[in-house]
Amino acid sequence: MKDAYARAGVDIDAGNEAVVRYRALADDWSHPNVLGTLGGFSGLFRLPGDERRALVGSTDGVGTKILIAAALRRYDSVGADLVNHCINDILVVSATPLFFLDYLAVGKLEPAVAAQIVSGVHRACKAQGMALLGGETAEMPGLYKPGDFDLAGTIVGIVDVDALPDQARVTPGDAIVALPSVGLHTNGYTLARALIPPDEIPAFGDALLAPHPSYYAEVRAIQAVADVKAMSHITGGGLIDNVPRTLPPACKAIFEQQRWTVPPIMAELVRRGELGHEERYRTLNMGIGYTLTVPLADAQRAVAAVPGAFVAGWIEARRDGEPAVVVHPARV
Amino acid sequence: MKDAYARAGVDIDAGNEAVVRYRALADDWSHPNVLGTLGGFSGLFRLPGDERRALVGSTDGVGTKILIAAALRRYDSVGADLVNHCINDILVVSATPLFFLDYLAVGKLEPAVAAQIVSGVHRACKAQGMALLGGETAEMPGLYKPGDFDLAGTIVGIVDVDALPDQARVTPGDAIVALPSVGLHTNGYTLARALIPPDEIPAFGDALLAPHPSYYAEVRAIQAVADVKAMSHITGGGLIDNVPRTLPPACKAIFEQQRWTVPPIMAELVRRGELGHEERYRTLNMGIGYTLTVPLADAQRAVAAVPGAFVAGWIEARRDGEPAVVVHPARV
Repeated sequence: MKDAYARAGVDIDAGNEAVVRYRALADDWSHPNVLGTLGGFSGLFRLPGDERRALVGSTDGVGTKILIAAALRRYDSVGADLVNHCINDILVVSATPLFFLDYLAVGKLEPAVAAQIVSGVHRACKAQGMALLGGETAEMPGLYKPGDFDLAGTIVGIVDVDALPDQARVTPGDAIVALPSVGLHTNGYTLARALIPPDEIPAFGDALLAPHPSYYAEVRAIQAVADVKAMSHITGGGLIDNVPRTLPPACKAIFEQQRWTVPPIMAELVRRGELGHEERYRTLNMGIGYTLTVPLADAQRAVAAVPGAFVAGWIEARRDGEPAVVVHPARV
Repeated sequence: MKDAYARAGVDIDAGNEAVVRYRALADDWSHPNVLGTLGGFSGLFRLPGDERRALVGSTDGVGTKILIAAALRRYDSVGADLVNHCINDILVVSATPLFFLDYLAVGKLEPAVAAQIVSGVHRACKAQGMALLGGETAEMPGLYKPGDFDLAGTIVGIVDVDALPDQARVTPGDAIVALPSVGLHTNGYTLARALIPPDEIPAFGDALLAPHPSYYAEVRAIQAVADVKAMSHITGGGLIDNVPRTLPPACKAIFEQQRWTVPPIMAELVRRGELGHEERYRTLNMGIGYTLTVPLADAQRAVAAVPGAFVAGWIEARRDGEPAVVVHPARV
């Protein structure tokens, strides 16, 4: 039986199969300056002529959150969703953002609406001190319905190669520090739209459009006081799919659900969709936006450095065949 | 009266109004490392810690050419369209490509189709010796119809600040060397789809899907033998809108149509759409894919360096109020 997310039209298995096929392309040829992808949230490219530094790039969209924004004609927050999502994706390798480029595709170009959307991108870039270097606005009648649009973006950052997190150092006993999410961020909207009928969308508008936050300042504050070995941005695939991307194969992550509060909008979706335990942690972030793995001895200092941060779980040894992430419903 | 392109649903004036609004955002705040945009084909960002070099970024899509590809289920060439378009956009400032990221959005993810599309991106990157650093594949039922997709990409390159073309050096008497286009490249497809009914599309498939070429090798060959002062990539807006982007205000570009052959697919569109003289040069590339402005004394060397290159016109002094581009139908 298909799970609720597949029923809503997003096929995670098809996505994984596409990734396998893409990897085969990289096996055919890849550029010698490309460094390992370190969890795959972003790509690293050794800067020609300066071997100590790498450029970091990542492209993402805001997914079907834009259909909610379009339905409510609220165009001011999707720009921040996009930019902050990308900032967090390259933050996983500790990169400092340099510049951003956006791609806006519309069915019918309304300059005032386009400017509102791009203005949100501009504000989020400015808040980060990152350049909005360019972008493309494409009018494509026939592909998009008149009121519809798609928004994607690319971030480029830079990192000292010596400062890259080294997930091989993660060991059993390490603590997992979590930064809380403020809502769905930019994932799970196809499911949300399947579970919340159009006439109820306005009532949930604020919760559904709560902007994806940047964790840049919080992560830098924790890195200043703790030895951060690995980080994960909790996006599509939730804790189940994202945390293992920065775990060594012999480690698993244990979370205790009672250590944090699930945002009401997610509890509502779980209830309406009768989402099973694994399903909910694979589809929604369930209240955790970003994780940092630190030695147990550093955990309290890390948590104290950022209001709202908390210890969500820990690392244990993993035997072959065991899942890489376990979320206990209660304290174990 | 609206021109044929506006009747087909693409509003160039709305696009220009959006650009004016975007510029107002940059007036609010822009990053100190951003250099002038030099014609706006790409953005330049001074590399922190290495003032002699700048990173160059550009984002673009392939427009509604993808609707032709989707209709014909030919997914192998749009990747090259995208990559080569982006290579040419940053080539205008003489940048060397470093890496590329793609954004693929689909209504229903078919892994084999997605892999075919991304494989085209990979091959074009490999041909350029540029890394395909990452990408995003988004499944968005509700935004895209099942067989539809959108494809966009971002290129990042690098250039020595001293090697940037300086369009202020362009003077009356300079020659304009042109590199021929092979078809529509990635512009004018909404118009083409309005003028060629669906049942005729298969007959025009090869002409419509001819891949957008990279001009990288050709431009480097010409730069090796000629003093290239300015370059333009002839994309949406044609010669009329693109050439002025790299002209000083006191100069105008004169082209003589009889110096080159208009590709048959464009002649067909001009005939079917009864496109006026200005309209055709503002909507279609009309046979010229890229221009390089060189001193008259260098023109013959430049043309000899690249098979197919030709002198398409020259620079004259421009008085206030005169158009920046004139295309003479015949030799003047």
